[in-house]
Amino acid sequence: MSNYFRANVDAMAAYVPGEQPQPGTPIIKLNSNENPYPPTPAVMEVLGNFDPELLRRYPHPFAQDFRHAASQVLGIPSNWIIVGNGSDELLNVVMRACTDLEREVVYPTPTYVLYSTLTQMQSARLLEIPYSEDYQLPLEEIIAANGAVTFIASPNSPSGHIVPKDDLRKLARNLTGVLVIDEAYVDFAEENALDLVQEFENVLVIRTLSKGYSLAGIRLGFGIANPQLLSGLYKVKDSYNIDAIACAVGTAAISDQNYKNACVAKVKKSRIKLAQDLQKLGFQVWESHTNFLLTQPPQNNAQDIYLQLRAKGILIRYFPQPRLDDKLRITVGTDEQNQALVSALSLIV
Amino acid sequence: MSNYFRANVDAMAAYVPGEQPQPGTPIIKLNSNENPYPPTPAVMEVLGNFDPELLRRYPHPFAQDFRHAASQVLGIPSNWIIVGNGSDELLNVVMRACTDLEREVVYPTPTYVLYSTLTQMQSARLLEIPYSEDYQLPLEEIIAANGAVTFIASPNSPSGHIVPKDDLRKLARNLTGVLVIDEAYVDFAEENALDLVQEFENVLVIRTLSKGYSLAGIRLGFGIANPQLLSGLYKVKDSYNIDAIACAVGTAAISDQNYKNACVAKVKKSRIKLAQDLQKLGFQVWESHTNFLLTQPPQNNAQDIYLQLRAKGILIRYFPQPRLDDKLRITVGTDEQNQALVSALSLIV
Repeated sequence: MSNYFRANVDAMAAYVPGEQPQPGTPIIKLNSNENPYPPTPAVMEVLGNFDPELLRRYPHPFAQDFRHAASQVLGIPSNWIIVGNGSDELLNVVMRACTDLEREVVYPTPTYVLYSTLTQMQSARLLEIPYSEDYQLPLEEIIAANGAVTFIASPNSPSGHIVPKDDLRKLARNLTGVLVIDEAYVDFAEENALDLVQEFENVLVIRTLSKGYSLAGIRLGFGIANPQLLSGLYKVKDSYNIDAIACAVGTAAISDQNYKNACVAKVKKSRIKLAQDLQKLGFQVWESHTNFLLTQPPQNNAQDIYLQLRAKGILIRYFPQPRLDDKLRITVGTDEQNQALVSALSLIV
Repeated sequence: MSNYFRANVDAMAAYVPGEQPQPGTPIIKLNSNENPYPPTPAVMEVLGNFDPELLRRYPHPFAQDFRHAASQVLGIPSNWIIVGNGSDELLNVVMRACTDLEREVVYPTPTYVLYSTLTQMQSARLLEIPYSEDYQLPLEEIIAANGAVTFIASPNSPSGHIVPKDDLRKLARNLTGVLVIDEAYVDFAEENALDLVQEFENVLVIRTLSKGYSLAGIRLGFGIANPQLLSGLYKVKDSYNIDAIACAVGTAAISDQNYKNACVAKVKKSRIKLAQDLQKLGFQVWESHTNFLLTQPPQNNAQDIYLQLRAKGILIRYFPQPRLDDKLRITVGTDEQNQALVSALSLIV
């Protein structure tokens, strides 16, 4: 076949979808940081009473209902909010709006692998700066690099740590490009960086309904920033990127903070228990502000454990890359799921 | 505010969303080519019985259920199908995978305005080649231009004409880049170009559920091409671009061909009547293979008619650009809606 692709796309590895077993498969799925609890029942009510007129017609280009609901919850005006088809779409939109061949994308590693993929896709220059072993932010180096876009996931995956707000503030103040603070896991943390968007015009905070709100299936994320910064992002996003059903479902979910908070509280409680159980088995466990744990088995056999669990129908995450290939990332499930995992591990290690 | 954007994004006009009045507004909406009939009742059944487990978990990265259903309907293997968050996303993905600064995007005009927006966004070189006055394809010029990507909307908007398959075949044979045949309106036409994807490795046919299937609200489009061509597009699309609900709803809709065909038959019948009524009022009406009519009022007052109708609560489409600013594009509605439009027009012209 002839080659129809741009050189940088051509050079990219073929896309390998994550391991997402068919729903119904008897498996304990602790590999992609989904919430173990279903979304608020309000969501099912929305679906059961959906107006077909909203299916027939184009949706609101800005997902207005969701913006209003999020605005109420966050105490931020709705024109400071942009809604995406998952937070992944918003990361993509920032990359397309702000970077190109001449411009650098900067982020500390290890972190969310999509930042690298999107940089490559955009043919932008990439500067990855390693975190210290104990996950202190390489602040001076990131400031010196001064990227067109700097990505900081906080809380970070797969480490689970949170970046101190003082560090984020120093970045925002010193960078002349856009600082993206990716708060996908923030619902499980004790603090967030939302107020920095009002303090600095170059800060974009990105959130998702996939984790805390148990809605990975509907692809809904949102960004918060100064309206002028958003105006450039609006130029790049697809006009009708948000599904009318997803908008209504997301609106119901974000409006039910009590339900979300209750689920989050359960996950955080289970996280403590799971960490203790892993430590009893001799695992090192990193402090987590998320719904997962980064952990290192007592023997240097992370990949082997991953495979043995997989054979027993328990999926966790193994990253075959430097610095992570001796560790495992485990999503916090229900107590029953976590117990099944710990029992299986106790027979392996 | 500092400028955080790439030069080409910065130069783009601010995004102006289409006129989408709030649902419930007493308006006759014939401006964005939505189907006037609701989607198949099977869709409401899907929503009423949706499994919350599918909300909690990440969706299938390739929208497998929809691909299977589309495969059955089209008689094409499912690995020849790529699913997008609306066909707009797929146009975007092709652009990103195949074009850049050095490469040219070619299409005949007037056509879907998004091709121009996406080209600008990607900083690709743009070559627009005008259709003849009677909408003959400028075949030789398009072949001579030999773009990295060539877009042909067939049926085309806003003209409503269909490009003869022999012309498309000649393009596919002679172009060394990708030929995108955008069949958004094909459900209302008598022929399609689907078999060209099996004949030529460089042809991508793109379709949508927004028009024939009355599902503009859920953002579901799909592309059909050789799996090798799709492999490059898969590298660029977001990993989880398709909402689990949209996938299930789309699967139900495409599986109910009888319902879709019945709605399409009604629209086509109404199209004939509307064209006759407009002609009786002295309008010139172009032959349409879509669910809209391009029409020219007897006096040179298209914009004035558009505004007068708008004031009466009837929305149609006016394009303030050369060659179109003396014409109007009218979506075919229900017979009642069309009659209301014709009555209003008879008082204006």
